[in-house]
Amino acid sequence: MNVQNIEQYRVGAEPFYRVTAGEDALYEAAYARRMPVMLKGPTGCGKSRFVEYMAWKLGRPLITVACNEDMTASDLVGRYLLDKDGTVWQDGPLTTAARIGAICYLDEVVEARQDTTVVIHPLTDHRRQLPLDKKGELLEAHPDFQLVISYNPGYQSLMKDLKQSTKQRFAALDFDYPEAELEAEIVARETGVDSETAGKLVQVAHRTRNLKGHGLDEGISTRLLVYAGQMIAEGVEPVAACQMTLVTPLTDDPDMRQTLQAAVETFFV
Amino acid sequence: MNVQNIEQYRVGAEPFYRVTAGEDALYEAAYARRMPVMLKGPTGCGKSRFVEYMAWKLGRPLITVACNEDMTASDLVGRYLLDKDGTVWQDGPLTTAARIGAICYLDEVVEARQDTTVVIHPLTDHRRQLPLDKKGELLEAHPDFQLVISYNPGYQSLMKDLKQSTKQRFAALDFDYPEAELEAEIVARETGVDSETAGKLVQVAHRTRNLKGHGLDEGISTRLLVYAGQMIAEGVEPVAACQMTLVTPLTDDPDMRQTLQAAVETFFV
Amino acid sequence: MNVQNIEQYRVGAEPFYRVTAGEDALYEAAYARRMPVMLKGPTGCGKSRFVEYMAWKLGRPLITVACNEDMTASDLVGRYLLDKDGTVWQDGPLTTAARIGAICYLDEVVEARQDTTVVIHPLTDHRRQLPLDKKGELLEAHPDFQLVISYNPGYQSLMKDLKQSTKQRFAALDFDYPEAELEAEIVARETGVDSETAGKLVQVAHRTRNLKGHGLDEGISTRLLVYAGQMIAEGVEPVAACQMTLVTPLTDDPDMRQTLQAAVETFFV
Amino acid sequence: MNVQNIEQYRVGAEPFYRVTAGEDALYEAAYARRMPVMLKGPTGCGKSRFVEYMAWKLGRPLITVACNEDMTASDLVGRYLLDKDGTVWQDGPLTTAARIGAICYLDEVVEARQDTTVVIHPLTDHRRQLPLDKKGELLEAHPDFQLVISYNPGYQSLMKDLKQSTKQRFAALDFDYPEAELEAEIVARETGVDSETAGKLVQVAHRTRNLKGHGLDEGISTRLLVYAGQMIAEGVEPVAACQMTLVTPLTDDPDMRQTLQAAVETFFV
Amino acid sequence: MNVQNIEQYRVGAEPFYRVTAGEDALYEAAYARRMPVMLKGPTGCGKSRFVEYMAWKLGRPLITVACNEDMTASDLVGRYLLDKDGTVWQDGPLTTAARIGAICYLDEVVEARQDTTVVIHPLTDHRRQLPLDKKGELLEAHPDFQLVISYNPGYQSLMKDLKQSTKQRFAALDFDYPEAELEAEIVARETGVDSETAGKLVQVAHRTRNLKGHGLDEGISTRLLVYAGQMIAEGVEPVAACQMTLVTPLTDDPDMRQTLQAAVETFFV
Amino acid sequence: MNVQNIEQYRVGAEPFYRVTAGEDALYEAAYARRMPVMLKGPTGCGKSRFVEYMAWKLGRPLITVACNEDMTASDLVGRYLLDKDGTVWQDGPLTTAARIGAICYLDEVVEARQDTTVVIHPLTDHRRQLPLDKKGELLEAHPDFQLVISYNPGYQSLMKDLKQSTKQRFAALDFDYPEAELEAEIVARETGVDSETAGKLVQVAHRTRNLKGHGLDEGISTRLLVYAGQMIAEGVEPVAACQMTLVTPLTDDPDMRQTLQAAVETFFV
Repeated sequence: MNVQNIEQYRVGAEPFYRVTAGEDALYEAAYARRMPVMLKGPTGCGKSRFVEYMAWKLGRPLITVACNEDMTASDLVGRYLLDKDGTVWQDGPLTTAARIGAICYLDEVVEARQDTTVVIHPLTDHRRQLPLDKKGELLEAHPDFQLVISYNPGYQSLMKDLKQSTKQRFAALDFDYPEAELEAEIVARETGVDSETAGKLVQVAHRTRNLKGHGLDEGISTRLLVYAGQMIAEGVEPVAACQMTLVTPLTDDPDMRQTLQAAVETFFV
Repeated sequence: MNVQNIEQYRVGAEPFYRVTAGEDALYEAAYARRMPVMLKGPTGCGKSRFVEYMAWKLGRPLITVACNEDMTASDLVGRYLLDKDGTVWQDGPLTTAARIGAICYLDEVVEARQDTTVVIHPLTDHRRQLPLDKKGELLEAHPDFQLVISYNPGYQSLMKDLKQSTKQRFAALDFDYPEAELEAEIVARETGVDSETAGKLVQVAHRTRNLKGHGLDEGISTRLLVYAGQMIAEGVEPVAACQMTLVTPLTDDPDMRQTLQAAVETFFV
Repeated sequence: MNVQNIEQYRVGAEPFYRVTAGEDALYEAAYARRMPVMLKGPTGCGKSRFVEYMAWKLGRPLITVACNEDMTASDLVGRYLLDKDGTVWQDGPLTTAARIGAICYLDEVVEARQDTTVVIHPLTDHRRQLPLDKKGELLEAHPDFQLVISYNPGYQSLMKDLKQSTKQRFAALDFDYPEAELEAEIVARETGVDSETAGKLVQVAHRTRNLKGHGLDEGISTRLLVYAGQMIAEGVEPVAACQMTLVTPLTDDPDMRQTLQAAVETFFV
Repeated sequence: MNVQNIEQYRVGAEPFYRVTAGEDALYEAAYARRMPVMLKGPTGCGKSRFVEYMAWKLGRPLITVACNEDMTASDLVGRYLLDKDGTVWQDGPLTTAARIGAICYLDEVVEARQDTTVVIHPLTDHRRQLPLDKKGELLEAHPDFQLVISYNPGYQSLMKDLKQSTKQRFAALDFDYPEAELEAEIVARETGVDSETAGKLVQVAHRTRNLKGHGLDEGISTRLLVYAGQMIAEGVEPVAACQMTLVTPLTDDPDMRQTLQAAVETFFV
Repeated sequence: MNVQNIEQYRVGAEPFYRVTAGEDALYEAAYARRMPVMLKGPTGCGKSRFVEYMAWKLGRPLITVACNEDMTASDLVGRYLLDKDGTVWQDGPLTTAARIGAICYLDEVVEARQDTTVVIHPLTDHRRQLPLDKKGELLEAHPDFQLVISYNPGYQSLMKDLKQSTKQRFAALDFDYPEAELEAEIVARETGVDSETAGKLVQVAHRTRNLKGHGLDEGISTRLLVYAGQMIAEGVEPVAACQMTLVTPLTDDPDMRQTLQAAVETFFV
Repeated sequence: MNVQNIEQYRVGAEPFYRVTAGEDALYEAAYARRMPVMLKGPTGCGKSRFVEYMAWKLGRPLITVACNEDMTASDLVGRYLLDKDGTVWQDGPLTTAARIGAICYLDEVVEARQDTTVVIHPLTDHRRQLPLDKKGELLEAHPDFQLVISYNPGYQSLMKDLKQSTKQRFAALDFDYPEAELEAEIVARETGVDSETAGKLVQVAHRTRNLKGHGLDEGISTRLLVYAGQMIAEGVEPVAACQMTLVTPLTDDPDMRQTLQAAVETFFV
């Protein structure tokens, strides 16, 4: 692993993130002790952005892994590849992070299989080690290494939940969509629409978020509001822009679509 | 990847596509922001043709992947192959598209396993990156790259649906079969039958589309109408042509076959 | 792929096939447009023989693949093999057929996994392409290539059926056992028994075909009648020949065996 | 494949087999037409011995494959192995049999997965071919090749049964335990006990065979009788010999054991 | 396979085993005919020790395989490994035993998958062959080879039981815990405690064995009694020693623990 | 395996562990006989720390393996890797431990698949051998080797439990959270907070441990108390520190969160 490869994990410019409840100070205190941290919250509310922001602020490289149910422990830890001189070990992203002292962010970790979650145990207690069993190496984590995981409690079910022995290895921070004023500011800043339009979009989102669990699995995320703003900024008529970005992606149920459509028209007709 | 390989993904001639509701302008606005787009609609209504048309219009190469439940993330991203000098990395179609700035079209994405859908997440938010974990490379997508997916809401079930965290990464456009006049024009143009015959075929299709959910999983698609027209243009007697292309492929239920047969005979006997 | 290999797929002599309802003309019209064709009908009624006959008549090579639930897309499309100089790509039967312009016959396609059926989609619409994703090649089908599939509607269940998006890519022809006179002629011709014996065998079969769904999954096929005729032609006493070929293979239920035995004895005792 | 390898499949000495109902003549007639044959009957009743006997009588090599649910089509057909010069194709037992003109005996074929059973289809109709898809070879079966399968109807269930399209490719012969006198002769001949002891053992077996389906899955097979005879011939006291070979292997149910024990004591105390 | 490797399978010193009911003579008679033998009995009652003892007495090497549900037929039979000159065949333990004339002991064979159990069929009938299909070799078993399997009837369920066609290939011997006096002698001999203490430990075990099926899956085995004796011999106070070895390992149910604890205290307080 | 590799498994400094009930003496007695030991107890109560402590005290290297349901026997035992000269055997952690005389600690062994648990059987009886079947080697364990496993009885279910034949190979020690005074001392020592704060944190934990089974799967572990203390020592306000480390990680149920929050506020507001 040469320097150039490390550099690709640095967060270049300051990511746009607005602190709302001192979560940066809490995170910094946890990082001071290299305490593993779990970020909880709904889809698209800014968890990934927060980690990027903190990695930037702390000046640490960031390695992000999108977890999924087909991911194996080897995908995280590494494997042998065949080279012209035989097999060569290749570190996985978790091992790389532990070697170079990066923050390793496992996004939506409940999606992963158990072997993926158990593999992080020795990295998240007093040992701070990663046994590379297949390589016969016991890797001591770099002093700056930290592990961060995210998960969406809405997905939590009897079938897919973290084991208690995993949960009790993390301090945890709750996340939610930003407050209306801040969310409008974000939408305006990231799309170029005026603040009035941004405010209307946020109001549409708030109506749908109340429908969560009443026919909608999730409300409209900040990300979709940004999409709507971008379409409007490209000159698309607001109702059509909202339909394409806030209504059609969310549901195929005709009644629910009408409800969403009505919410859009309340503000944009 | 040399130029010749890229050229094979170019859409040569203008595909025949008739815009019906400004969907080309909406798509162009989304592409201007490189926004991921989801196309929703029934089998054979022209979603694939639309993407081809837009790729042609925007002058972008198009890489299409037919998704299926046995497809792995490696099928999309790439894998190591053994060469005489050891292993050589080979980009998968998604990686190729991200490198060369193509439009990548994942057809019937709900069919794929979760690891296939999660792999697109970092390409569909502000990061626009594709981590090639097995290669230790973090690929920044080409500025012209865009991701398009299709899915058929009729298949949507509790077992097979996109995760909310995937859905909320796409703007979406609804598709349906073209209106009668336009569909007849398409059938006539693609088969060589006269417009009266084409019109009759479309009327047969309309009757079956009302049967969707009442004994038929799907109505007769435009594609099957084109097959019927082609058989007639080859000199096959219309009732026999319709039976072979509009009745027998759709169902084995004797009652439903009789209903379809009656619809055919209404117009062709 | 050299010429010698292609030749092995040619149908040497004219296969014995009796046209019953103009199905050859319908097939020829479909082939003229290279339309994908689906053959439907019960076990052993002559679907495979018909494809052979048409391949012979049209002078096209024929590549047959017996589908099964453990078949992967790679079994159809091809895979890399390790050679002394590294990996070498080897076309699968579908790829070979698309390259050399053969008729590719996928027998009992519903048995295959979805990845096998989805892989044929781009070959069965206006694209007529086969993306060899693992090889990074987009194969344009030979102008003479055609795809034919068979399936037995009796097997059709909620668990195992073609997807609508697959079904609507094919024109379809129904097949059934030949009419009595023709079937007797076939049995006599293929076994050497006299036409009276052949006629009796067909009558036994007809009785069992009425039992389909009433304790028998399928009636006696033409193939089993040929077996019976062959045993008789070898000098085996007809009742023993029928028991070995028409009764014992079909069922282990004592009552049903008695019923079948009685049908045999009606004609041969 | 050199001659030496073929010789290992020859049946050296005449296997001990007593024809009971002309099954040898029926088999010979079927073999004359190279008709595929299915042998049906309970565990250990002599099906495998019969095939050996016929292979010896017809002077054909015999290749036996014990099927199981983890067997793949490649286990039958063959696979590529890595050699110092790259990959080398190695025929599986079915391919070897088709090449050298052996009788291929697939024992307990219902245990196998579907891909194993479908792979035999083209070998069991007029084609008599075996497509080695992975090798790109279409193997024409040797003129002397014949396929024989066995299965035990007692195992037949909705979950595990041959498909009709497989069943209807075989003529079938029923097998059962030999009649009492013959079975006693077999036991005496194979163990060295006197005919009175052999007769008593057979009578014990007959009592248990009536219990099949009434607490016993199967009755005592001829094989176990031979074991009992061998133990007695080794000087073990008959009741202890019977307990070890006829009672303890069959069941762990205390009542059923007592019943079996009583049957033993009726004849040997 | 050189001599040194064979030697590692020899049983060096006479294993400590006390014959209780002539099982050694029965085994010797079975071995004289090379009859496959099945050992039935609960956990830790001495089945493995008995096989070792018989192997020592008969002067045969012993190869033991602990079966499990993830074991494949290749784990028993052998596989190709890659060497610098290409692939090299490596015999599995069953093949090794068949070649060198060892006793092969498959421990807890019901745990294995069906392919593992079917693979032993040709070795357990008159053929005494092991087809190494992947190697194209038909191995004739060494004249001294014998197969022994064990299984615990307590585990027997509808889901996991030997097939009748497997069961009926074995003579069988029942095993149980030794009688009290003998068991105490064993405990004293293997631990160094006096015979009074050993006797008390056996009495504790007897009480728990009556609880089998009434809250305990199995009673205390002889092995655990030996553990208890060893702890006492190391100077641990008997009640604490019994708790650690006879109570805590067996159950986590508080009531059952109290019952076991009371049994311990009856004899040791 | 050279000396340097062994050294990495040595426990460097004395781990902080407080003996509570003579468990060190019991363990030493068991180790004197090399008896396999099972540690039972809830998440984060100090089982792993105890093994480290004993390994340090006994001067033995320690190899820890975090078990999981995707772990195979090969992950424990070893496998062949491809080198430039062909395949090279690589010991797994269990084999390494058996060779060098380490204590091998299998953490949460019930999570593993059966093949992983069965593989330890020959190492845990009088044989003390590990058959490396794939290598054809029968490894005699080093005289100092010992096996230790842990499991959490709270996870015990019908689906996931150790087999009796595995359980009865181990002596067992129960573990629980330390008593209040000792736990406070641990928290103070590992975080730097004063003993009053540490005492309050322990009291919060005690309240939650009574909720186990009444809405909480597990109570607050000692590890989480240490996290809370660390956050407070970093200057975070105690209520916020407790929320982040004792409340949010444990549950997403609003009522349960309020209960936990109330417990925190009882002591810290």
